[in-house]
Amino acid sequence: MSGFRELYDLITVDDAINKLIAAASPVQDQVELPLLEVLGRVTSGDITSEEDIPGFPRSTVDGYAVRAKDTFGSSQSIPGLLTVMGKVGMGEVNNLSLKPGEAVEVPTGGMLPEGADSVVMVEYVERTGDLLQVYQGVSPGENMVAPDEDLAQGEVIVAQGHRIRPQDMGALAACGISRIPVYRRLKVGLLSTGDEIVPIETRPLAPGQIRDVNSYALAGHLVRLGCETEFGGIILDDFDRLVAAVEQLVQSCDLVLLSGGSSVGMRDHTVDVIERMGPPGLLFHGVTIKPGKPTLAGMAGKVPIIGLPGHPASALVVYKVLVEPLVRYLQGEKNYLTRRFIRLPITRSLSSPAGREEYVRVRIEEQEGKFWAQPVLGKSGMVSTLLKGQAIAVIPLGSEGVKAGELVEILPWDEGGLR
Amino acid sequence: MSGFRELYDLITVDDAINKLIAAASPVQDQVELPLLEVLGRVTSGDITSEEDIPGFPRSTVDGYAVRAKDTFGSSQSIPGLLTVMGKVGMGEVNNLSLKPGEAVEVPTGGMLPEGADSVVMVEYVERTGDLLQVYQGVSPGENMVAPDEDLAQGEVIVAQGHRIRPQDMGALAACGISRIPVYRRLKVGLLSTGDEIVPIETRPLAPGQIRDVNSYALAGHLVRLGCETEFGGIILDDFDRLVAAVEQLVQSCDLVLLSGGSSVGMRDHTVDVIERMGPPGLLFHGVTIKPGKPTLAGMAGKVPIIGLPGHPASALVVYKVLVEPLVRYLQGEKNYLTRRFIRLPITRSLSSPAGREEYVRVRIEEQEGKFWAQPVLGKSGMVSTLLKGQAIAVIPLGSEGVKAGELVEILPWDEGGLR
Repeated sequence: MSGFRELYDLITVDDAINKLIAAASPVQDQVELPLLEVLGRVTSGDITSEEDIPGFPRSTVDGYAVRAKDTFGSSQSIPGLLTVMGKVGMGEVNNLSLKPGEAVEVPTGGMLPEGADSVVMVEYVERTGDLLQVYQGVSPGENMVAPDEDLAQGEVIVAQGHRIRPQDMGALAACGISRIPVYRRLKVGLLSTGDEIVPIETRPLAPGQIRDVNSYALAGHLVRLGCETEFGGIILDDFDRLVAAVEQLVQSCDLVLLSGGSSVGMRDHTVDVIERMGPPGLLFHGVTIKPGKPTLAGMAGKVPIIGLPGHPASALVVYKVLVEPLVRYLQGEKNYLTRRFIRLPITRSLSSPAGREEYVRVRIEEQEGKFWAQPVLGKSGMVSTLLKGQAIAVIPLGSEGVKAGELVEILPWDEGGLR
Repeated sequence: MSGFRELYDLITVDDAINKLIAAASPVQDQVELPLLEVLGRVTSGDITSEEDIPGFPRSTVDGYAVRAKDTFGSSQSIPGLLTVMGKVGMGEVNNLSLKPGEAVEVPTGGMLPEGADSVVMVEYVERTGDLLQVYQGVSPGENMVAPDEDLAQGEVIVAQGHRIRPQDMGALAACGISRIPVYRRLKVGLLSTGDEIVPIETRPLAPGQIRDVNSYALAGHLVRLGCETEFGGIILDDFDRLVAAVEQLVQSCDLVLLSGGSSVGMRDHTVDVIERMGPPGLLFHGVTIKPGKPTLAGMAGKVPIIGLPGHPASALVVYKVLVEPLVRYLQGEKNYLTRRFIRLPITRSLSSPAGREEYVRVRIEEQEGKFWAQPVLGKSGMVSTLLKGQAIAVIPLGSEGVKAGELVEILPWDEGGLR
């Protein structure tokens, strides 16, 4: 019996990621962009506040600014008594100064007058003319934010290597930072290989042909992460053409993904191409994952080249677990690894080879208010099973399977696919 | 004591969403876009396959195409014997016809010859010249995909109202669908209100002023969902200006979000503006959520107008739980509700008013291989606490709190923020 396994020195997915990270370097070039255009981009430096935020003592409630000690012991049965000596409007600078026994009406977000150190909520007072009855005491600092309490001058708002989220845009707006330094976009080259692969416009297909699925599905994932993509086309099972196409992508891209080459000859070609690009040549060939075992990678100078399996489902699994962390690293993101914090019970028992980390495509199904991971079964290479999957469940290395009802780690394909 | 609560007839967040959905209508206009540009867009019609996929009998393994019954009973100790009568190359049309007792070498993805109904994996055979020893039998259909098994002609690939994911792009590519009908982009108008709010470029701030955080943070969320945004600017506490600004946004937008108006006068203005736009006027005013109670909404003809709280954290919580489902609905997405399938134990006990669904901002922390929801504590209105949060934990309506270690529902702000 000829065996596939013996051909490879398999390494774990963690080791594969580490080898790539060790060999590759993040992009360095920076661009400065308007705040509205930086969603999902990675900061190229620490962004610090140029001033104290909020910069003035601010009320967090509608109520009355007071000296906290004037309210100590106030209660529903024995209210404290204060004199209202004015009112502060929103966004209004006030020159009021609070003396003992006095209160100033202040709206949420309003500036406390000098001398005030806290705010009593409007719900806990009763006002009659200028007389204020206080039904609950406050502590110093209560219901207010001190001038440098939110962000102090010089404090880091967003650190270097952070992928900008909507709430970061809000915080940067609060600090008046309207132009943001980020790394330039990563450019990823995509190449499909195999005599059977044809451009998607091909119609009708000749028997034996299939259209180029992987370039489009991978491009979708890459675009979601803010990459540019360059299509190198479809390369037939021809060594010289493959070399030429890879060399061209290496010139213009930061990362090259080959997919396909599912024939043995093509696989060998891919190995040969990567070795020819070296040193350092091949980083690994064969990963202890299922699907995705024949994945291989190397470097062409500074440009990582990864050979993905040809089957779309396999290629996408390898993209998600191995390539995506590398893409994030190359983009400059500090936290490039995926945290696997979601667990769901699986609906059926599955066996799995103990020496492989297995990724099972699942749907997330709700039954009587409880959520389950429902394996999407189907033959390898079918695109219809791609459509049904919303996430991947992980059966760890060393496990021989999972039992129905057991909790499994869930990696969503992407946020958009979970509805 | 004056009370905030009595002013409102509070409704639940589910009722609030349902009222908005009942009053509003999804966009109808369609555009046809190239496949590479439709990630995250919503399909405006069912997209069906124009042909059978794969269209030919395809091997899912490297091996030998056979008639299954010729292999019945084959085992390691009593191998079956077949004659290899040819080889099929990748992407190659073959005119071979398999007779009983014959086998044809076929690569993964290759076309089975006529007469073959299954494939024996290369791992389970030993070949000597044209003689093939088969060590494991196969069933009809095993290790192959029938011509219409993946997607049959006329079968729906992606249904109307589906937000396109990377794997959908792959499946559409497989079917040769290179132009995709999707709904036009939703346009959302953003307006900040309040005398204290100033443009983000303002520097230095006068005491009492704060910069416009909400427009930017909300724009980030909306852009992530593929919306266009239009900034209506910052409106001071002035009824006529507010009416004019809202009327202008209603002309050009599909949805208008107001935020701020945290002063009582401004709140009243917002109510008055919405009532003036009607019928139907105000849909609700006050939701049983914390934060976000004073949220209100109405319709200006076909355009929903939502008044969000002024505090950024509150505005973003209301966006996530109430506005995002509406945005998805208006974009034409069928599954517009958020499924709350993530549960994590919370690190500390929290009390919560029983009559409110409370949303607590949390970080996802790993301790000894276990993930926890760690509440981000901080005063309301602080932007630094926005930065620290990665998700929101839900304390349900009717619960008076959660105990440390208890599992809570987790809503990630967005996929990008979970590292």
